[in-house]
Amino acid sequence: MQTNQFVPIDKETVRNDTPGLATSTLFMNSAGASLMPRSVITAMQDYLQLETQVGGYEAERLRADHMAQLYGEAARLINARPNNIAFSYSTTAAYMQALSAIPFRSGDVILTTTNDYISNQLAFLSLQQRLGIRLIRIHDLDNGDLDLMHLEQLIQQHRPVLVAITHIPTNSGLVQPAEAIGAICSRYDCWYLLDAAQSVGQLPLDVDRIQADFLVATGRKFLRGPRNTGFLYVSDNVLDTGLTPLFIDRQGADWTGSDTFAIRVDARRFEPQEKSLSVVGLVEAVRYANQLGIEAIGQANQGLMHRLRTGLGQIDGLDLTDWGSVQSNILTFHSTRQSLATLEAALRQGGVLFTVQHKQGAIIDFTRKGIDWIIRLSPHYFNTEAEIDAVIELVDQAMTGRSV
Amino acid sequence: MQTNQFVPIDKETVRNDTPGLATSTLFMNSAGASLMPRSVITAMQDYLQLETQVGGYEAERLRADHMAQLYGEAARLINARPNNIAFSYSTTAAYMQALSAIPFRSGDVILTTTNDYISNQLAFLSLQQRLGIRLIRIHDLDNGDLDLMHLEQLIQQHRPVLVAITHIPTNSGLVQPAEAIGAICSRYDCWYLLDAAQSVGQLPLDVDRIQADFLVATGRKFLRGPRNTGFLYVSDNVLDTGLTPLFIDRQGADWTGSDTFAIRVDARRFEPQEKSLSVVGLVEAVRYANQLGIEAIGQANQGLMHRLRTGLGQIDGLDLTDWGSVQSNILTFHSTRQSLATLEAALRQGGVLFTVQHKQGAIIDFTRKGIDWIIRLSPHYFNTEAEIDAVIELVDQAMTGRSV
Repeated sequence: MQTNQFVPIDKETVRNDTPGLATSTLFMNSAGASLMPRSVITAMQDYLQLETQVGGYEAERLRADHMAQLYGEAARLINARPNNIAFSYSTTAAYMQALSAIPFRSGDVILTTTNDYISNQLAFLSLQQRLGIRLIRIHDLDNGDLDLMHLEQLIQQHRPVLVAITHIPTNSGLVQPAEAIGAICSRYDCWYLLDAAQSVGQLPLDVDRIQADFLVATGRKFLRGPRNTGFLYVSDNVLDTGLTPLFIDRQGADWTGSDTFAIRVDARRFEPQEKSLSVVGLVEAVRYANQLGIEAIGQANQGLMHRLRTGLGQIDGLDLTDWGSVQSNILTFHSTRQSLATLEAALRQGGVLFTVQHKQGAIIDFTRKGIDWIIRLSPHYFNTEAEIDAVIELVDQAMTGRSV
Repeated sequence: MQTNQFVPIDKETVRNDTPGLATSTLFMNSAGASLMPRSVITAMQDYLQLETQVGGYEAERLRADHMAQLYGEAARLINARPNNIAFSYSTTAAYMQALSAIPFRSGDVILTTTNDYISNQLAFLSLQQRLGIRLIRIHDLDNGDLDLMHLEQLIQQHRPVLVAITHIPTNSGLVQPAEAIGAICSRYDCWYLLDAAQSVGQLPLDVDRIQADFLVATGRKFLRGPRNTGFLYVSDNVLDTGLTPLFIDRQGADWTGSDTFAIRVDARRFEPQEKSLSVVGLVEAVRYANQLGIEAIGQANQGLMHRLRTGLGQIDGLDLTDWGSVQSNILTFHSTRQSLATLEAALRQGGVLFTVQHKQGAIIDFTRKGIDWIIRLSPHYFNTEAEIDAVIELVDQAMTGRSV
């Protein structure tokens, strides 16, 4: 956390801004897809209405200024400049655009972690199969933290082309030390790609401190934006070096002659041409986070998560499965004493919205933890302490077999 | 056109189904992004409402059956089977997934046309620069038709890995002979990729007759669906050969061990994991086309376009710039006698929604035609003869300088 002064979250206001909280559910799935604030929903409804009346091209022309606010708002959120920001369809889409821009050759090394997101791992394995890149995973310390000395040894030994880190895994509460990793990478000649899908909108991100070359973010999770949206930050170094996605379209380049083209100078060379109503939703989501202030959001989250971890940690037979010294708004648990079915049913009956994750989504992490499933709870600043307590009580009841 | 019996379009019904036609505009931009029928809009509004209440993950779970209808409806539209269909974010996104699946090596040849879409051309040029593929363009005959003999000569001479054809260019009314091209390709060992962005929803497409290996389609144009949607057809041969996008995600593959993965057997290996409310809109758009019948749609379009071409063709000083013996619902014109600004202003004042295209979007085609711009009109079956006549009259007035 930075030490800036900021105005704390006014919970009543943010709850009034969130129509989905009017129902009786206990929403604990912001790491999946969060509840959108009213400004996001209204922007999308209005845009759809306009498209209904005049068609998608005319609507885009009339709303071009609104859509273009994405670059400034996203830049403000992560302390970047607007020309380092590109719109993307998702974190994964942004990630693939970034990967495609690096001209890998056979034998090139990608360093990653044992906690990287499944779709990123699959992309690495596809590159391994197709292009012969070598994939090496950095060790963790016994407490689950990334072994930064091992990272530096691997860099010195293998001279990787890319260091690829998932900031917060989707399947555990661990927070990787993005800034410390950046400090190490900056001393060597390698690209640093940070998947911030689960951290953007949840806690402060500062690209100057992280020193990433690529940072990918999604709209739908802690940013509370629409699905199928995200953004990509690329550093000036990436732009100046001329890195360009393998498959550019007319958004990213000008066709200058039958066999020639010229790449855009800014980050939008990584952006797809085709857009939708969801872009204005994303603009409003990022603006909403900026207006509340990401430091205030981060602080509110720390308080809630401390309460949830402490409460669940006291339940007999329940295993909290998050490792590492810094933890996030993702809390995962498992139990050998009570079945998944029973726990799941109890939570659903209690109106909790959450996610169950199975081993095939996190095969390395779950194998070493010796588990097949986890229940994931991911509150956000709009949740109340009373909601946290209600969820703890539901889990406690399910574990002790008392009726819910 | 096929000779099946079919029920002609009931224009009053389809106009009543289309809220955007209630305004006073003359909508002639279905080649850009068409007007959506009410069923498409309602499906998206309802989905957004559900997401507002329960968040994006729970909404997807509750609407999974609706979203899954895409495969059957799209298959029905193009005479395919559901397991040959994948959802895509756009034609371009589908196109790039297809291209990425072909393991190009330096020296491999891609055959294309002088009329292929700008983003496809940019992708070829990027592959040329990055991987050293060779790009060869098939000649046209004097009337603008593709020279099929030249196509076959080039195949015999260069043994291309891929033949890539844009069925209907975005910047001219030309219809390429997709079935004749497929018949030739099928005699040789090459992949055949058809960009059907402008033909799907406009006229009948039958993948058995076209014999394409990949066919990419968009939702927003003549299918009248939402923006940022499309689909990809891949043949059994593509699937059986094991072609797989370079950047798969968890939708396309299972992570089976820390360094192993297993590809989906069906076409959805080409599909991205992340979806949005637009998917149900696309389902309803394809269903709407299927319910009307694509033969009926195609017939209605031919009548309207004959009227528009004939009417505009009689205006002195106006140059229709569409070449080729088969023409589509895209009509383009230019004039050396009247300025673009005057024509554009007259049409806008008359309430026409249309598109202007400049040379940089079609650099080969516009260079040989000796033009810098065209005005593109793209009616669809919901337009009336009275609207066609009104547009002809507006252009006529603008050309003769009479006040509009």
